[in-house]
Amino acid sequence: MITFYQRTDCPFCWKVRLALVELRLDYEVVDTQLGEKHPDVLRLSPTGTVPVLVDGDVAIWESGVMLDYLDQRYAQGALLPPGPDLQAGVRLIHAYSDKCIGPALRELVFEKRSKPCDEWDQELISRSEEAWRACQAYLETKLDQQWLNSGTLSAAECALAARCGVAEAYGADVDVQYTALHSWFQAVKLRPSWAFAYPESFPGIGRGQTTI
Amino acid sequence: MITFYQRTDCPFCWKVRLALVELRLDYEVVDTQLGEKHPDVLRLSPTGTVPVLVDGDVAIWESGVMLDYLDQRYAQGALLPPGPDLQAGVRLIHAYSDKCIGPALRELVFEKRSKPCDEWDQELISRSEEAWRACQAYLETKLDQQWLNSGTLSAAECALAARCGVAEAYGADVDVQYTALHSWFQAVKLRPSWAFAYPESFPGIGRGQTTI
Repeated sequence: MITFYQRTDCPFCWKVRLALVELRLDYEVVDTQLGEKHPDVLRLSPTGTVPVLVDGDVAIWESGVMLDYLDQRYAQGALLPPGPDLQAGVRLIHAYSDKCIGPALRELVFEKRSKPCDEWDQELISRSEEAWRACQAYLETKLDQQWLNSGTLSAAECALAARCGVAEAYGADVDVQYTALHSWFQAVKLRPSWAFAYPESFPGIGRGQTTI
Repeated sequence: MITFYQRTDCPFCWKVRLALVELRLDYEVVDTQLGEKHPDVLRLSPTGTVPVLVDGDVAIWESGVMLDYLDQRYAQGALLPPGPDLQAGVRLIHAYSDKCIGPALRELVFEKRSKPCDEWDQELISRSEEAWRACQAYLETKLDQQWLNSGTLSAAECALAARCGVAEAYGADVDVQYTALHSWFQAVKLRPSWAFAYPESFPGIGRGQTTI
């Protein structure tokens, strides 16, 4: 049995949860809260942060490594396409999600989750929304059937869906002007895995509320 | 022919260069300097940073994705061991190198490469050296024959060797008290790939000089 240490709204955790659900794997969740340092997480991870995935003797503390492991052990290519070229494309979108979209959305999320709305720094939020629009414009040029809804969500799609979900939850939904990206995200949200893996709550936002 | 955009002393570039040399691949280098924004790099990478690797129609802007690509296309498992458990171990050490050792060494390198020595902030340097010792202590517990000098250097070893090389160049060599790590690094330095892939120079340090 897989044990998954997570924070429900963390996009890295959400990404892996989507993969676990897409692959129909049984897993036990250990929930942590924002700022909480779970002793098992501190023991198992050199960064001390969630997600941490434990499967028998294997303990993994990095979300990208989790997807590779799950693909190789349980999914035989469901999360990653065959061949070096296609796989590099999926890995790059995954890397873009972690390295570019995360920082772009950071101030938007931090402001809205940590302060009452009359204390939000609107300039920081605007700058963050601008950076997120630039990410969407980039992604619009990279959308490719190779990593789009071919059976199971790919590693790139799990990562991207969670980021789009965070953006939407904090009031910055994928813009309809990015038609390919917008259509893709609408299709993802119709999958059963989306509802199963959706966060229990977002700090600062009422449960189930998707805009504020 | 592979084209590799790099900065010679950048540990992410050095890591990939080690892999290219270990795999005996032909590649053409395009060198950039610290702070330089090469137009090809700006066009090919959403982060605008080196390394960037171009192989025919494939352009890769993330160093970890490069190693996966090279392994899959040219090396058939030379950089990554078989099986999900062993491969997760190698991927975690690789992630540790990027996410933990890099930040640990940052201040040490930044101070020494950007200022004359009478202006170095010794407190920042000491804190960085302390963090690097903590990394070495962690690695000492993780050293495993599975990712150590079994034929070709693994992805983890390429990453780690470059970080240890940077540390050594800026005066913080691997400590002999970490006997397994120290022995491993000495063995790596005896490989022909080490000399071939060694940086041309380090900013702030004379060429070929390995301690300051």
